[in-house]
Amino acid sequence: MSPFTPFTTDDYRARMDRALHAAADAGLAGLVVAPGPDMAHLTGYRPPAETERLTLLVLAPGQDPTLVVPALEAPDAAKAPGAQALTLRDWTDGTDPYALAAPLLGRTGRFGVSDNTWALHLLALQEQVPGTSYVALSTGLPMLRAVKDAQELARLEVAGAAADAAYEEILKVPFAGRRESDVAADLAALLRRFGHEQVDFTIVASGPNGADPHHEAGERTIRHGDTVVLDFGGLMHGYGSDTSRTVHVGEPPAEVRRVHDVVRAAQQAGFEAVRPGAACQDVDRAARAVIREAGYGEYFIHRTGHGIGVTTHEPPYMIEGEEQPLVPGMCFSVEPGVYLPGRFGVRIEDIVTVTGDGGRRFNNTSRALAVVE
Amino acid sequence: MSPFTPFTTDDYRARMDRALHAAADAGLAGLVVAPGPDMAHLTGYRPPAETERLTLLVLAPGQDPTLVVPALEAPDAAKAPGAQALTLRDWTDGTDPYALAAPLLGRTGRFGVSDNTWALHLLALQEQVPGTSYVALSTGLPMLRAVKDAQELARLEVAGAAADAAYEEILKVPFAGRRESDVAADLAALLRRFGHEQVDFTIVASGPNGADPHHEAGERTIRHGDTVVLDFGGLMHGYGSDTSRTVHVGEPPAEVRRVHDVVRAAQQAGFEAVRPGAACQDVDRAARAVIREAGYGEYFIHRTGHGIGVTTHEPPYMIEGEEQPLVPGMCFSVEPGVYLPGRFGVRIEDIVTVTGDGGRRFNNTSRALAVVE
Repeated sequence: MSPFTPFTTDDYRARMDRALHAAADAGLAGLVVAPGPDMAHLTGYRPPAETERLTLLVLAPGQDPTLVVPALEAPDAAKAPGAQALTLRDWTDGTDPYALAAPLLGRTGRFGVSDNTWALHLLALQEQVPGTSYVALSTGLPMLRAVKDAQELARLEVAGAAADAAYEEILKVPFAGRRESDVAADLAALLRRFGHEQVDFTIVASGPNGADPHHEAGERTIRHGDTVVLDFGGLMHGYGSDTSRTVHVGEPPAEVRRVHDVVRAAQQAGFEAVRPGAACQDVDRAARAVIREAGYGEYFIHRTGHGIGVTTHEPPYMIEGEEQPLVPGMCFSVEPGVYLPGRFGVRIEDIVTVTGDGGRRFNNTSRALAVVE
Repeated sequence: MSPFTPFTTDDYRARMDRALHAAADAGLAGLVVAPGPDMAHLTGYRPPAETERLTLLVLAPGQDPTLVVPALEAPDAAKAPGAQALTLRDWTDGTDPYALAAPLLGRTGRFGVSDNTWALHLLALQEQVPGTSYVALSTGLPMLRAVKDAQELARLEVAGAAADAAYEEILKVPFAGRRESDVAADLAALLRRFGHEQVDFTIVASGPNGADPHHEAGERTIRHGDTVVLDFGGLMHGYGSDTSRTVHVGEPPAEVRRVHDVVRAAQQAGFEAVRPGAACQDVDRAARAVIREAGYGEYFIHRTGHGIGVTTHEPPYMIEGEEQPLVPGMCFSVEPGVYLPGRFGVRIEDIVTVTGDGGRRFNNTSRALAVVE
């Protein structure tokens, strides 16, 4: 059971109102939203997947928020937490769902469309209502879900604490002689044990696999002397966790300690750059400068962070060129890394939220290099 | 281990050639394909998910098939079964992937785009190369993956047999007194035990829940006297299974038997309508006529079937209005149902392939109403 008061119809109505105001401020005529994180945020409705059958939330001034939904799925949609704030318009197989959606868009105007809307559906809307144009929400309204309210922050904090508990426990399991996929399964079970309803990723990247930032977990048997990157997270009470720590099987050699110290200092520098009014790219720059000055600049091959909320991966992005200012309530990862091809990798990651005067971490396990067995 | 010879570079090269010829025949300048079933079919590459980071296969005459891929994921892409038939172009965070993709499209032309390509990416391409236009593959080239070759048919047949084995076993487990979700977990475990690497759905819809065709499996406790719709499938050796049977907990009353007989006859009629040259809608009409004539027409509230291949849900669709002729090698479900609101539902589903002179089922368990305990 959730320790949280569920979001109410009023919460969802307020979110949709806010989204519509933000859209108007950005010069948009409204929003069209497919199943996915934007729909979950705005309505609480999480259909199992986006499919070829059109499900579409349309928000436009002067009309009720309307959800176009396949008749088969209308009973589930009607049970969504925000359903009372929606008008449901269902359609049956064999009828044209785009003809049902079109009048909701009027004849002209530029609409924000959720990033993950299928091309199939977007092209049909473009054809059905040729006077409309579209901009992806992460381009046109990137901060739509970026600033979390107190209820959301509480959920993200609890999810972070659960991920931390999973990390404390994983330090106790044997690593040497087991496959990466075995340790990954342990991590998934721990996330669930500590309350996650969904596990999104459990990266266990040992030895040379650690040098590939997107390696997940494979059949490689972990050996004594390996450096192992752990990066895991999922959803708890509908909100995300995502943390990384790097451990060593047995006593680490001096080079691993040195690289780890650099990444740890970079992560700390990135964290300390978090304050209201700083730009997203300042967080990236602060972390990157530490790694570059230590001589490992070319081995830090990804951005420093990404937002988190009803997904484990969303705007804002902590990346060079992103000038969006940080605002209290934003939540994102700070996760620099160094990846030495063919040898090992190190990454340290916390979720951080922007407060009134700086940043606060939702992950608080030790950032020292842990020794495992 | 797979009993099948893996698809080779030549297999993938041939598929991409065929796709390009089909595109030309349809008046298309080429294809742009995002991660998902089309990419899996054409290249064997199955990245974990489509994300905001652009991964895009571009096929156009006179140039090598090219995969634009985030640098982080390039090592995985290079290991894909069809990678040797591809030119990889990787991009790093902070650079513009659309500027990398644009020259591959030339300046003008109408391209087929995979249905599930994110709006984020399509809008960026539309903006980057304003002279291009796009049509969803299921609209512009709906039969791209519809006709399976012998190797694919063999995989679908084996997947069907494994699903059948799971059904035979599930008849032996207790139903009464257990939750739908418990039986669903049994089904998932059975699919894996019989060789599935991925479980896509395990619907267990008991009593009144059976009247909602898209009910999955919930906390309802199954009771003596319930009718229970079972509908389950996933991927095995990369190809899909999907079968439904309806069972009864204890001796069924006359009305349940009567409805079940009607659905069984409808399913048989749909199956018998399968032959080369018939239209997809003929299969729907044949099944629907039986149900309508029995007086239950208004309770058959979905199309009769959908294609199956590297997904469990794809063209061709057996639906009124779909005039596409059936071609040997097509594979799809035949799954009529009757749904009596608030009471119970019945659905019977087999995967059927079109042969030279009719249809052949990949699901061959008894279609009689099974009694479970």
